[in-house]
Amino acid sequence: MNRFLDFLEIALPFTESFFLLLLKAGFIFVVGLFLAHFARKKIAKVISKKDEILGNFTSQVASIAILIITIVTILANLGVQIGSILAVLGTAGVAIALALKDSLSSIAGGIILIVLRPFRKNDTIELGSITGNVEGINLFNTMIRMPDDKLAILPNRNVVNANIINCTDSHKRRIEWVFGVKYDNDIEEIRNIIKDVIAKMDKVDLSIAPFIGVTDFGQNSLNFTIRIWAKLQDNVFGIRSELIENTKIALDKKNIQIPPQKLDITILSQIKDEK
Amino acid sequence: MNRFLDFLEIALPFTESFFLLLLKAGFIFVVGLFLAHFARKKIAKVISKKDEILGNFTSQVASIAILIITIVTILANLGVQIGSILAVLGTAGVAIALALKDSLSSIAGGIILIVLRPFRKNDTIELGSITGNVEGINLFNTMIRMPDDKLAILPNRNVVNANIINCTDSHKRRIEWVFGVKYDNDIEEIRNIIKDVIAKMDKVDLSIAPFIGVTDFGQNSLNFTIRIWAKLQDNVFGIRSELIENTKIALDKKNIQIPPQKLDITILSQIKDEK
Amino acid sequence: MNRFLDFLEIALPFTESFFLLLLKAGFIFVVGLFLAHFARKKIAKVISKKDEILGNFTSQVASIAILIITIVTILANLGVQIGSILAVLGTAGVAIALALKDSLSSIAGGIILIVLRPFRKNDTIELGSITGNVEGINLFNTMIRMPDDKLAILPNRNVVNANIINCTDSHKRRIEWVFGVKYDNDIEEIRNIIKDVIAKMDKVDLSIAPFIGVTDFGQNSLNFTIRIWAKLQDNVFGIRSELIENTKIALDKKNIQIPPQKLDITILSQIKDEK
Amino acid sequence: MNRFLDFLEIALPFTESFFLLLLKAGFIFVVGLFLAHFARKKIAKVISKKDEILGNFTSQVASIAILIITIVTILANLGVQIGSILAVLGTAGVAIALALKDSLSSIAGGIILIVLRPFRKNDTIELGSITGNVEGINLFNTMIRMPDDKLAILPNRNVVNANIINCTDSHKRRIEWVFGVKYDNDIEEIRNIIKDVIAKMDKVDLSIAPFIGVTDFGQNSLNFTIRIWAKLQDNVFGIRSELIENTKIALDKKNIQIPPQKLDITILSQIKDEK
Amino acid sequence: MNRFLDFLEIALPFTESFFLLLLKAGFIFVVGLFLAHFARKKIAKVISKKDEILGNFTSQVASIAILIITIVTILANLGVQIGSILAVLGTAGVAIALALKDSLSSIAGGIILIVLRPFRKNDTIELGSITGNVEGINLFNTMIRMPDDKLAILPNRNVVNANIINCTDSHKRRIEWVFGVKYDNDIEEIRNIIKDVIAKMDKVDLSIAPFIGVTDFGQNSLNFTIRIWAKLQDNVFGIRSELIENTKIALDKKNIQIPPQKLDITILSQIKDEK
Amino acid sequence: MNRFLDFLEIALPFTESFFLLLLKAGFIFVVGLFLAHFARKKIAKVISKKDEILGNFTSQVASIAILIITIVTILANLGVQIGSILAVLGTAGVAIALALKDSLSSIAGGIILIVLRPFRKNDTIELGSITGNVEGINLFNTMIRMPDDKLAILPNRNVVNANIINCTDSHKRRIEWVFGVKYDNDIEEIRNIIKDVIAKMDKVDLSIAPFIGVTDFGQNSLNFTIRIWAKLQDNVFGIRSELIENTKIALDKKNIQIPPQKLDITILSQIKDEK
Amino acid sequence: MNRFLDFLEIALPFTESFFLLLLKAGFIFVVGLFLAHFARKKIAKVISKKDEILGNFTSQVASIAILIITIVTILANLGVQIGSILAVLGTAGVAIALALKDSLSSIAGGIILIVLRPFRKNDTIELGSITGNVEGINLFNTMIRMPDDKLAILPNRNVVNANIINCTDSHKRRIEWVFGVKYDNDIEEIRNIIKDVIAKMDKVDLSIAPFIGVTDFGQNSLNFTIRIWAKLQDNVFGIRSELIENTKIALDKKNIQIPPQKLDITILSQIKDEK
Repeated sequence: MNRFLDFLEIALPFTESFFLLLLKAGFIFVVGLFLAHFARKKIAKVISKKDEILGNFTSQVASIAILIITIVTILANLGVQIGSILAVLGTAGVAIALALKDSLSSIAGGIILIVLRPFRKNDTIELGSITGNVEGINLFNTMIRMPDDKLAILPNRNVVNANIINCTDSHKRRIEWVFGVKYDNDIEEIRNIIKDVIAKMDKVDLSIAPFIGVTDFGQNSLNFTIRIWAKLQDNVFGIRSELIENTKIALDKKNIQIPPQKLDITILSQIKDEK
Repeated sequence: MNRFLDFLEIALPFTESFFLLLLKAGFIFVVGLFLAHFARKKIAKVISKKDEILGNFTSQVASIAILIITIVTILANLGVQIGSILAVLGTAGVAIALALKDSLSSIAGGIILIVLRPFRKNDTIELGSITGNVEGINLFNTMIRMPDDKLAILPNRNVVNANIINCTDSHKRRIEWVFGVKYDNDIEEIRNIIKDVIAKMDKVDLSIAPFIGVTDFGQNSLNFTIRIWAKLQDNVFGIRSELIENTKIALDKKNIQIPPQKLDITILSQIKDEK
Repeated sequence: MNRFLDFLEIALPFTESFFLLLLKAGFIFVVGLFLAHFARKKIAKVISKKDEILGNFTSQVASIAILIITIVTILANLGVQIGSILAVLGTAGVAIALALKDSLSSIAGGIILIVLRPFRKNDTIELGSITGNVEGINLFNTMIRMPDDKLAILPNRNVVNANIINCTDSHKRRIEWVFGVKYDNDIEEIRNIIKDVIAKMDKVDLSIAPFIGVTDFGQNSLNFTIRIWAKLQDNVFGIRSELIENTKIALDKKNIQIPPQKLDITILSQIKDEK
Repeated sequence: MNRFLDFLEIALPFTESFFLLLLKAGFIFVVGLFLAHFARKKIAKVISKKDEILGNFTSQVASIAILIITIVTILANLGVQIGSILAVLGTAGVAIALALKDSLSSIAGGIILIVLRPFRKNDTIELGSITGNVEGINLFNTMIRMPDDKLAILPNRNVVNANIINCTDSHKRRIEWVFGVKYDNDIEEIRNIIKDVIAKMDKVDLSIAPFIGVTDFGQNSLNFTIRIWAKLQDNVFGIRSELIENTKIALDKKNIQIPPQKLDITILSQIKDEK
Repeated sequence: MNRFLDFLEIALPFTESFFLLLLKAGFIFVVGLFLAHFARKKIAKVISKKDEILGNFTSQVASIAILIITIVTILANLGVQIGSILAVLGTAGVAIALALKDSLSSIAGGIILIVLRPFRKNDTIELGSITGNVEGINLFNTMIRMPDDKLAILPNRNVVNANIINCTDSHKRRIEWVFGVKYDNDIEEIRNIIKDVIAKMDKVDLSIAPFIGVTDFGQNSLNFTIRIWAKLQDNVFGIRSELIENTKIALDKKNIQIPPQKLDITILSQIKDEK
Repeated sequence: MNRFLDFLEIALPFTESFFLLLLKAGFIFVVGLFLAHFARKKIAKVISKKDEILGNFTSQVASIAILIITIVTILANLGVQIGSILAVLGTAGVAIALALKDSLSSIAGGIILIVLRPFRKNDTIELGSITGNVEGINLFNTMIRMPDDKLAILPNRNVVNANIINCTDSHKRRIEWVFGVKYDNDIEEIRNIIKDVIAKMDKVDLSIAPFIGVTDFGQNSLNFTIRIWAKLQDNVFGIRSELIENTKIALDKKNIQIPPQKLDITILSQIKDEK
Repeated sequence: MNRFLDFLEIALPFTESFFLLLLKAGFIFVVGLFLAHFARKKIAKVISKKDEILGNFTSQVASIAILIITIVTILANLGVQIGSILAVLGTAGVAIALALKDSLSSIAGGIILIVLRPFRKNDTIELGSITGNVEGINLFNTMIRMPDDKLAILPNRNVVNANIINCTDSHKRRIEWVFGVKYDNDIEEIRNIIKDVIAKMDKVDLSIAPFIGVTDFGQNSLNFTIRIWAKLQDNVFGIRSELIENTKIALDKKNIQIPPQKLDITILSQIKDEK
């Protein structure tokens, strides 16, 4: 019993100071959370007015940095020796470095993308098999909205190391289309028909001369290649469709048909028996 | 004989203390197991109310951490010098780091996935050739339930470094379908038929204008591309099938047929002999 | 001659102690072998009652660990300085680490597979191009019995880093089958025939509505997709075959044929000469 | 209250010096920004007169270097100990090195490209699947304008390690074209027709003898290969098209046709029933 | 001249001791070679009685180890300081480690293969695109005798890290064969024919029920899948051929034919002119 | 004011010495540039007389080495402590090593290529998909002139690690050609025709017996393989074409035709209705 | 002027000693070159009598080693401190190690190939897509003479890490050939024809029973597989051709034809109008 009282005598002050520590830690935690929240909201607001991607990225970085500092401060206040933890981790350093390699590459990639700006928000980009509009860049990922409204989430590391094709950088776009006509058709006649079709399309940029020419002998057809330039890049798909439809109508008027597969047959023997 | 007694005299106290040590270790082991179990159940319960994936992940991490601490404590109590073991391991550090690289990457990947949330539970995601609904994220793996109810178990490292396509992020989905008609058919007539079909489908989101146009000259057919937007993304497959079926019925009414392969034949010689 | 006697005088005690050392080493060797054998048999027996894979794995690990300790003990007894060997190896450490990287990864992978249990014994799993039932996991390899009874032996490293598809995890399985009918056929009629076929199959799980619909215009055929759910997953292949056979019989009754390739031929010229 | 006054007494001088520090930092910042801007504009202007790519690259490197020096100077002035930060980072060095590996490779790659000059501005190069005109090289990326006016942005690391094909290096270009005629045609006749066609094309460089010869027996056609050299490399595509069109016209004049697929048919049995 | 005599006076004893050293080295060399040869022959002989692969491997390892020890001993005797050479090499350690990485992996892989025994001598294994019988494992390579008697020599590293398929592990083998009949044929009739064929084949293991069923609608044929189990695995190829031949004969008896490609032709127009 | 004069008093001598330093640096720079230029021109001239590739490579290496030494000397003269810079870089060493890895590999590769000479200037080599004549090797790249006169610029690292096929090493070249005749033709007759064709070609090296034989049953043709050896390797393409043309003419004389695709047709039913 | 004389007074002795140094260095250089040349010629000559590959390899290694020692000796004589250079290089060690990794691997690979001898000179080996006769192994490369007499130069690293197929190791070779006959033909009759063909070929090794059997139902043909063993491996290609030619002749005698593609045609409607 005496022992227990002795224990209390020693333990109580510790308990007291323990609660004070907890209180302190709690206070720091609340302040840290508030600052992180504040940083996230205010920074995003202020910077986004000029540059939305930069605003979101900076606010995310700032709030995560504040949170990490908060946690380290609390641990240090509770008497945890951050230094010695780091020293211990030093031993496991290579392993951790190898494990986090790709994640750190993504963070570095994010910063490079923010600084270099190979693309801006709403730019249409092609990255390997993924095509879409850039929705934003955050600490780890780049978000791309695909044409069918799915959201592609790409690690920044994949983005920064890839060959990016930016489709929104230019004000014109070349449309290339290959189609075939019968070998009987006259090359010049076809060329003139296509020329007329293109001349009547007001969305085609005629300041760059279009190319219309035979570029190969196909299996069953003489293959023409058409190369025109579109005035507006945001409806290239529609202009291409328009070109094809107008060409079809023009060819129909001149009674020129798309060639079917052509066969030369030699009938060696014809046996007439019935089963 | 005397020697044996001497031995006992020396050995007995050790034996005594050995049993005490074992008792202590056993006690720590039971407490540790109980705490791990408790952490697993309670944490999962409390957090899962708000966020099921986070709850499962945190409880798994907590229970494994408690178990490791328990084992280390027991070993330290039994007099095993953890420090010197770590020092010895330091020599083999590079080998171990290289061996565990991928596993540590998966743990780091799990934490990043929990923090960044590129997808939530039950989201439909595409990861390379695997498509399915997310069932959960644990310390090493992400579980995806595939459409035929198989369970794909992916290392978090593969998930976090991959280009993820989240299909549940948007409220609409574009449906694209390419089909061909005979070259004889009138483009505008076909377009009107399709327009009528789409107009009658109540699940199609007409707020975004659908695209109906010729996009290529096929070998035997004029190829139309249809692009419509679905109102609800959870039955896109059904709406697509409905579109195709309704188009078929509408084309049948107008007696428009799907073109078969077309051949132009020249018969060079016909030999009439019978075998 | 004197020299030789002197030599013997010096050498004999060494020889004596050498034989004693050999005796000691031999004794340790026999005890170690016995313990390793005992660990292998008994541990496997005891744990396998509850969990066969865990039992085999643990007994294998235990016996190999005992063997390594035995060899180290013998070497130490024979006066080989393990410490200095390790120091010497330290120089060659990077080379050895790089050489053993994959093997150590496989051991680590084995432990992770035992702890995480993405699959259990006799589960059917798919790992890239290999499909089969899990036979067991040992220190380095996972054994998978393929459907034609060949045994695939996969390094644990390949297993733990791969996307595993566990086919035994669920109690139902979706069966998808695509087939084509002639463009003349009525969509609703076909759908009703298939519905009747499915309704009569007692192994189909009708609690989930099956899907029957046209999903594409094929070259020569209207392509239907059927999606049904099987009650039991262990005979999915048979149920699929039953569905196809019953559909064939039902289509035959209604005189609906599978469409052959369809051609439209224009005979341009017919030359009638005989060779 | 006294305490607060004491506090002010101590705090005020610090506040004062703090504002002075801020002023100093602000001043350095403004000067740094100005110098960076100046370097960017002036250097680009001066060097670009001789070499545009070198000018842009150097100015970008200079301005970024000045900015980094500015930030380090400000931090040092504010009392941040750069040295100790670097020491702390030393621990995390391997991780950072691994994370930045690819980015540093790109910077190194940029310098190598600037020094070695495997291509110049407006050169047409082929890099794997990407072909286009070089627009410029900056610190991380090489910009290539593709033929359809999309902008490909390639990390310098990918460029410097790839097999680059420079199409603008030479003053002539070989055009190769393979086409087939019927097996009945005379080889020498065809060769003479092609020779005449080439002789009449004034853009073909006849200083190198063109090659016209049969190089394979095709399924249905005798395959000729034509190899000619173009005088000007900037319209090779047009010259190729001209060659093909002129060949077509020349063959038409001689009534030589492109062979269709040829079949030998044996009719085994002919059943005459009507449905 | 005096100088030369002085030189001789000093040089002679060195020459003497040099020859003694050479003699010593030569002696050690001969003994080492003899021991290596002895180890190679005797060890191989003794162990090969029980386990041929182990015998060959151990004798090869032993003789190479003896040779290395011999060379080191000779060098040490000649006064070469092995220690300092190792220290010098220490600087070049990383380079050497990287250079030898794959070779050391192969040695480690050889030991693992000898210990784990995923296959034994004469087992038929599949390793990626290579199939054949194991001839042996030595320090670096695994030798596989391919069916056409070529010898595949695989680095152990490739073997130990690959997914190995062991075909000799089981006592039965499933034979799967898919073939097609006309759509007119009755499913049950075909099934009965195949059942009869299988029942008459005495090498088929009927303890496992064979599977005979339609598994797909082919382009021109109803596709049956047959799955039978062979009693003996060493002539599976012959049993498969027997099954196919017997099926052909049985189908012939019932006058059931293998379906040719089927076409539906619409002749649009027939022009009768002669050239 | 006094302070300013004091400052000048102290600053002036520094300014003086600063200008002297600048002068010295400028002088070293001019001398260095001159030496580099001299090395480039003279070394190239002297060595190129014997070996052009070696001359270009050595002169490039020499001039770059002189430039680097010049820059280091200037910096040392200006008081920059190269040693401490290197020490600082030591911290960033791993990162820089990783970044420059590929570039250093290319320099090492260049030296190996110069020493080993797997190919010489104007040799025709094949490197993966690139074929052409070697134009030169410089510090980083190997230049290959492709047959259409494009210039392929390959990093030496890719060249030295690739499987190089040197086509100019031998004085003869085998030409292999596979062609098909009808199944009706007599094998010996065809063989004799080809033999006559080859005998009449004076550029064929008949010292090695040509191979003419049937090597497969094709779908529609008996496939002959011809293997002949050409006397001169620089016109192999032409000799191959000559062989094919001569064979065609010889076959025509004997009235042997290249077989078209052959079909056996069974007409199941012929419906005679007119639309 | 005095200063200049003073300078000369000091400089002259240096000049003198400088020329002495140069003389010394030149002497060492000449001796080194001679020794390297001698090693190259003599060693190659002596060892090549027994083993040509070993002779060439050893002489190359020896001469390069002598050259390196010569250069180091000269530099040391000229007062260059090799030690300090190595120390400086120590800092750049990782970078150099990474850069030389592949080259050092090739040297190590060369030694392993020389020691292990997976192939000998003139052996025919297959290495991925390259097949040919081994011409030699030198320090970095293995030379393979391809069948068309091109020379493939492979880095030893690629050779030692690849799966090598040695075709010269065995004294027999299996020839496999698949061909098809009509479905009407009798299986036993065909088998007997082939048996007769094989029995008459004296180069076929009949000690191993040949396999002749149906192994698949083809689209238009019953597919036979023939497996025979050739007596001599150096003319396998010719024996294969002989087998095919003899089979063709034997089938012709029995009037058995190679089946053409077979079609079942249903003519739906025949429209008789003329254009």
